Amino acid sequence: MNLKKVGNQTVVFANPPVILSSYSVVGPMEGQGPLGNSFNQVWPDNINGEKSWEVAETKMLQEALQGAVTQAGVQSDQIDFMLAGDLLNQIISANFAARQMALPFIGVYGACSTMALSMALGSMLIDGQFAKHILVGVSSHHDTAERQYRLPTEQGAQRLMSQQWTVTGAGSLLLGQAGVGPRITAATLGRVLDYGETDVNNMGAAMAPAVADTILNHFKDLNRAPSDYDLIASGDLGSVGLGLATEVLKRSGYEMGDTYTDCGVLIFDPSQDVHAGASGCACSAVVFAGHIMERIKAGELKRVLLVGSGALHSPTSAFQGESIPGIGHAVVIEA
Amino acid sequence: MNLKKVGNQTVVFANPPVILSSYSVVGPMEGQGPLGNSFNQVWPDNINGEKSWEVAETKMLQEALQGAVTQAGVQSDQIDFMLAGDLLNQIISANFAARQMALPFIGVYGACSTMALSMALGSMLIDGQFAKHILVGVSSHHDTAERQYRLPTEQGAQRLMSQQWTVTGAGSLLLGQAGVGPRITAATLGRVLDYGETDVNNMGAAMAPAVADTILNHFKDLNRAPSDYDLIASGDLGSVGLGLATEVLKRSGYEMGDTYTDCGVLIFDPSQDVHAGASGCACSAVVFAGHIMERIKAGELKRVLLVGSGALHSPTSAFQGESIPGIGHAVVIEA
Repeated sequence: MNLKKVGNQTVVFANPPVILSSYSVVGPMEGQGPLGNSFNQVWPDNINGEKSWEVAETKMLQEALQGAVTQAGVQSDQIDFMLAGDLLNQIISANFAARQMALPFIGVYGACSTMALSMALGSMLIDGQFAKHILVGVSSHHDTAERQYRLPTEQGAQRLMSQQWTVTGAGSLLLGQAGVGPRITAATLGRVLDYGETDVNNMGAAMAPAVADTILNHFKDLNRAPSDYDLIASGDLGSVGLGLATEVLKRSGYEMGDTYTDCGVLIFDPSQDVHAGASGCACSAVVFAGHIMERIKAGELKRVLLVGSGALHSPTSAFQGESIPGIGHAVVIEA
Repeated sequence: MNLKKVGNQTVVFANPPVILSSYSVVGPMEGQGPLGNSFNQVWPDNINGEKSWEVAETKMLQEALQGAVTQAGVQSDQIDFMLAGDLLNQIISANFAARQMALPFIGVYGACSTMALSMALGSMLIDGQFAKHILVGVSSHHDTAERQYRLPTEQGAQRLMSQQWTVTGAGSLLLGQAGVGPRITAATLGRVLDYGETDVNNMGAAMAPAVADTILNHFKDLNRAPSDYDLIASGDLGSVGLGLATEVLKRSGYEMGDTYTDCGVLIFDPSQDVHAGASGCACSAVVFAGHIMERIKAGELKRVLLVGSGALHSPTSAFQGESIPGIGHAVVIEA
């Protein structure tokens, strides 16, 4: 049997799955940012009339999922599986959104790398001939994340300059075995790396080694270099993590240049006072579903490497003195 | 292209993956139960010298994963991916165990259905030709679960009769593309169902409709009946949920008879005072890796349907008044 795995961590699709549609819903702050026009929906505020931020996040994810389905023009009963995840304990946003969608559901957890992980898994299920259509989606919400991971939002604690701002939003893609759209041609699944970072206010530093490792292994597995891509975008390293990952890659022999950026750096303007940039599952999901997909469709980008980045700790592990493991999952998207 | 999906929710493997090895580690109470002799390792207590229950749970999962690898006689660098999950916030047990294993890692969340979900996903990745070997593993721990989901353990609150006891344990399987062992021949991925149960002290009732739905759809998709199986075992419905699921199945036209049981009913003896039985990711994982695998290898069982059951809520969703959605994922194992 012919294995579609190349090297240690990469799979190459025989019949690359198509991204039939993408849909993004964001909060007002993301809507006011430099990529505001690329999102399908911008909510007027972070709760939008729901009774809690958590319910609002689920609603946002449902809207993104439904938006992707509608835009692809595929009937719900033609969708084989739904893959989704989020940052909340027991991924309740994804679970409750899945309750509404009534599709066979696969819950995933990769922290903020969940969109890239879902794209990789979904593509394997399609290319493996288990599905014709797979719906993937993720969400995050500034206020649900703040109170779960950090401090009561009412407290208004001052934020450190290395901290990132969790994106309020949801992104969804409908992947298909055939059709018109960019294709997912390969994926590199990441290993969990931990260089001992214990500062929960510096997620970029915690995730940078894993992201760099995945990019390096991706290059090695496929014998590629930065110049083989029009854009390499990590998920949410922010400005601190982007600098660190760039440095690691440089010391490993790769000058990344202008090709490499980070979704967490792109989505907000420095004037929006988010300190080191953005984070959250939705960060790379909405930047990809909105901005990057727009540029691919416009013919500006032929081949993109999206590297979702995740910090795999919890408040409990941090309180117990554990360092913060990171992971990076990469997918190749080609026009 | 020939789709390996049959009906709405079921996939049938072209080259059924082999369970090359199984390994189970449990706490003392599980060791004293009726299946005690079927487990590979029984810890003398729930913490085993570690500094916290959470660290102990990670350690237990590592031991199970390492045990499965060693028993299969496969080198670590021959394992393509690791799939794992658990019940703790941000699945830290799985993340930290993955840090030790240094394998490309796919985090999954299906609450207590995670073993069946990982077996289904892992089998799809192998049959889809993306991997030769996949390591799957899950864990749960009575004390980490109690303080996260319920009350401070020190409080010693009285438990309701419908409550189940979270299994302290970890189970792992090494799946291979070829080799000697039972094979995973099909899988039915579940939908999220919610019949409005809001009692967090009655998880069996919350999960029973989803488990029955998955079993019904499995029968429908493959045109099978209970008599096609030597054993149908749900994950952790416990005695309350098992009764409810049996009743739903009966009203839907299927007399399950003695073929149908529940891992949460099997693992403890009523004299162990666990009320409605056992629960937790490890419940179905260790009962399958230990007891059921033993019976398959002994020739007593030719075809088994394992139906992992998960309650997809969180303390936050429960506090906000949400009901408890359930899910069931099924895998067919044949000698």
